[in-house]
Amino acid sequence: MNKNKDNELVFLPLGGSNEIGMNLNAYGYGPADDREWIVVDVGVTFGDPSTPGVDVIVPDPVYLEGENIRGIVLTHAHEDHIGALGWLWPRIKAPLYATPFTAYLIREKLRDAGLLDQVTLHEVPLGGTIDLGPFQVEMVTITHSIAEPNGLAIKTPLGTVLHTGDWKIDNDPVVGERTDIETIQRLGDEGVLAMVCDSTNVFVDGVAGSEGEVREALAELISGLKGRIAVGCFASNVARMDSVIRAAEAAGRRVALAGRSMHRITAAAKSVGMLSDIKPFLSEDEARHWPGEQILYLCTGSQGEARAALSRVADGSHPFIKLGRGDHCIFSSRVIPGNELSIGRLQDTLSERGVRIHTEKDTPGIHVSGHPCRDELRQMYQWARPRIAVPTHGMRRHIAEHALLAKDMQVPETVTPRNGDMVRLAPGPAAIIDEVPSGRLFVDGGMLVEEAGTALRERRHAASNGVLVVSFALDKRGKIVSDIDVRAIGLPGDEDQPLGDILDDLAERVEQTVRGLKGAALEDELVVEQAVARTLKKASQGVWSRRPIVETVVLRL
Amino acid sequence: MNKNKDNELVFLPLGGSNEIGMNLNAYGYGPADDREWIVVDVGVTFGDPSTPGVDVIVPDPVYLEGENIRGIVLTHAHEDHIGALGWLWPRIKAPLYATPFTAYLIREKLRDAGLLDQVTLHEVPLGGTIDLGPFQVEMVTITHSIAEPNGLAIKTPLGTVLHTGDWKIDNDPVVGERTDIETIQRLGDEGVLAMVCDSTNVFVDGVAGSEGEVREALAELISGLKGRIAVGCFASNVARMDSVIRAAEAAGRRVALAGRSMHRITAAAKSVGMLSDIKPFLSEDEARHWPGEQILYLCTGSQGEARAALSRVADGSHPFIKLGRGDHCIFSSRVIPGNELSIGRLQDTLSERGVRIHTEKDTPGIHVSGHPCRDELRQMYQWARPRIAVPTHGMRRHIAEHALLAKDMQVPETVTPRNGDMVRLAPGPAAIIDEVPSGRLFVDGGMLVEEAGTALRERRHAASNGVLVVSFALDKRGKIVSDIDVRAIGLPGDEDQPLGDILDDLAERVEQTVRGLKGAALEDELVVEQAVARTLKKASQGVWSRRPIVETVVLRL
Repeated sequence: MNKNKDNELVFLPLGGSNEIGMNLNAYGYGPADDREWIVVDVGVTFGDPSTPGVDVIVPDPVYLEGENIRGIVLTHAHEDHIGALGWLWPRIKAPLYATPFTAYLIREKLRDAGLLDQVTLHEVPLGGTIDLGPFQVEMVTITHSIAEPNGLAIKTPLGTVLHTGDWKIDNDPVVGERTDIETIQRLGDEGVLAMVCDSTNVFVDGVAGSEGEVREALAELISGLKGRIAVGCFASNVARMDSVIRAAEAAGRRVALAGRSMHRITAAAKSVGMLSDIKPFLSEDEARHWPGEQILYLCTGSQGEARAALSRVADGSHPFIKLGRGDHCIFSSRVIPGNELSIGRLQDTLSERGVRIHTEKDTPGIHVSGHPCRDELRQMYQWARPRIAVPTHGMRRHIAEHALLAKDMQVPETVTPRNGDMVRLAPGPAAIIDEVPSGRLFVDGGMLVEEAGTALRERRHAASNGVLVVSFALDKRGKIVSDIDVRAIGLPGDEDQPLGDILDDLAERVEQTVRGLKGAALEDELVVEQAVARTLKKASQGVWSRRPIVETVVLRL
Repeated sequence: MNKNKDNELVFLPLGGSNEIGMNLNAYGYGPADDREWIVVDVGVTFGDPSTPGVDVIVPDPVYLEGENIRGIVLTHAHEDHIGALGWLWPRIKAPLYATPFTAYLIREKLRDAGLLDQVTLHEVPLGGTIDLGPFQVEMVTITHSIAEPNGLAIKTPLGTVLHTGDWKIDNDPVVGERTDIETIQRLGDEGVLAMVCDSTNVFVDGVAGSEGEVREALAELISGLKGRIAVGCFASNVARMDSVIRAAEAAGRRVALAGRSMHRITAAAKSVGMLSDIKPFLSEDEARHWPGEQILYLCTGSQGEARAALSRVADGSHPFIKLGRGDHCIFSSRVIPGNELSIGRLQDTLSERGVRIHTEKDTPGIHVSGHPCRDELRQMYQWARPRIAVPTHGMRRHIAEHALLAKDMQVPETVTPRNGDMVRLAPGPAAIIDEVPSGRLFVDGGMLVEEAGTALRERRHAASNGVLVVSFALDKRGKIVSDIDVRAIGLPGDEDQPLGDILDDLAERVEQTVRGLKGAALEDELVVEQAVARTLKKASQGVWSRRPIVETVVLRL
């Protein structure tokens, strides 16, 4: 630990610096043993097939618990920036600050978590400023794939940090303001100590492209189609929804929303004056009775999520929306890595029904990314001219590549912390000065558990190898006085070896094993259990070439 | 069933027509009740995270069992074309036919399966002809991403079928012959009844590109790099290996192979005269003592496979190959859908070590696909001019799109069978005349089991929800005479609710449930088990918001 009594400015990523998503960043000011903190974003990441039963993963905030946190500022309303508030706020209690659209969605989240009464949530106007002790935080309007995205200019007595949040440079964002270039340039003129910056698209040349171009591409595509149209996109991208809705209206179609988050986000958007001059949505039920060529469904589920609208349309289980031959499904969305198979299955099931699929592969321009590509990163470095580059929001390979780009851009210092690395930004040269406890917590069965916990490890082992359960009763002298009950979970039999025969054979071996034990061994259930488990593991290897989990239950009478 | 006594020519896909991979096709000739058959390809597909514990999936050949099969022809040596021979040959015993390189690898496969003595394997020269009863099969040299790929011209008294196998048009395939355009055009002139054709890249415009171009791109990239170089590619692409080896030699580097299939394939390639004029490979051990700038490793594991060479290099567990800062890893390979996360993790781990990653994203041209894009498909239709198009080797969306392309190409008839659909090709118009038993068999614990089998379903359920096991003993009157043993597999506790407390509470509830049962109920173990299971399921819902698998073991004394 640095025991210096001088004031320092530190940056501490607890999420987002080893992955894309799960953002939780902290800035500290003060002497090492008495820092004041602000937290920027409290996001989740999502489980994948390697974490069965775990849908949501949050950063471990343990280091910040009990610290002097002056406020929590949320840059925008994507789940990887606000999604962990319900789980983590009780551990890092501090007032929340967000712009109105973001605040609307945070309020809903707190309500769901039963926290609404306990939390103070301050609505900050676009471009507004928040005073949080030694930190003066200015909201800097940027562009991204959601309404009201903000970068933060964090001013401290030791210098200004530009925390970009998720951004790109979109000169025609369709909804909301353009990137506030003047402010960023002014900050650059005044001197930016450090820029903590999005690395997502650092491997992509050029620029991400504009929502305005997407609007045109969608209008052209939609105007040329007959039959019903379903469009899958992320509800949180209000500009995209707006573009789809206007393309539909221009083509003489009414719009119906399908999926809970479509309704949730449109309510949030309307609360801040967006989506105001459009025709009322049809309900899904009304839309059923409308001619197919006059209807367009805006649907959740573009990632192939099992219970979302598009999947239910595809498998025919949606109560109101039926698509078939002559109808169209437009994917105005990216493929999130890891979702390729589920999206492929969804598109396949729709194809089976005769639905024509349109994606950015065959119709370029109907989707653009919300993150800066290399030319945009270069532009931002030219505007902000930071002394220190701190790449974040990326896997290690993105962060390493971003560091090279910053070097190319003549940024004097670059530091690439991992989650849990505390970076001193000032005074003196930037450096990682400490490594604090950090990690990921898994939401498992409604509990927050350690990433390396037993439960998930056991489930994974069971998923590949199955479970054998053997139970029997012993009397006081170690004689078996019940049946030997052997059960298999997730273990197969076939014609040559029916499962019943296998289990009978295993019971036989268990009996022999117990009979083979001598006096003292029989008095200790643990010894009996271990001997039986060894027998069953060895036998399983022979039968299934596997080592299932073996549970041996010895009941002593 | 069609009971016509006239001779018919039928095509029956049992794999490959609802997916990319797992190819198993049959052609039948004769009256409906007395057909002679040939089988084309006997391939596997691979499990994915939705099939934990199942790595290999094969087509169900049940319909062909006991039929009169004159021969099994293998078009090329990719696993999705020959990989199921070890599993399925015993069920569809017939002589095998393949060109020399393919035959070499089949022989190895049969040896591994202990079948080498039982199987007759005929080596057919390139361009050779096989007489199989009413079928005269001509091997037509094509190009693909493996050595010795073949299409088949299947001549029958009712017309000729061109079965393309996997192909593209590569005018500079680096290793092996070019596509035998003359033969395909001659077949077209003579009249092709039907073309059964690869659909993999039907959504990709233009052409796949040539191995010759890849050779140039790799040579340029490799010549400019310092430090150690590892190249990940598919071993079966001998042309690619050849290109990498020559690029290495031109840059003054010796080559070492890393990974079993690299050695297996180079042996197969050398057995047919390929890779003949190259310097001997260094062993991995020798290479260790070589200067880094004079070495290049050809590695397996470009898909992020956990036990392959590249993953072991990345995690530092490879016994001989160490890469670090200043070294390079080139991915001369595609991302197979479903492998995005594992490849991302691999690249990340390498980045962590300071290894620079090169992929086709940042260095275009270092990989090309082996399957025909739209312009190549159009070209093939112009050469072959079939009366009937039968798209295969695709998901349903690929097959539907391919049918549209065939229609555009003025092919008079198109038929799009699913696996198990029997297509009459002649006489009369093409039509699906029958649906036969078909499906996928899972290799699970060394057994071939039904796709919908219980074992995998249970493992999946356990993976997400865990398992609860409760065991206790009852005496003859239904009194509990042992401890109530409750165990959780894959279920968590936390600080508020330690797992031990939860299990104690569950045991308590089980006791109350059993005590609450009356006379007759207590005499029937099944009734007791069901009552206890109900209690535990309900309680689990409260504790974990989950429904684990509940095993209730009631031992009656």
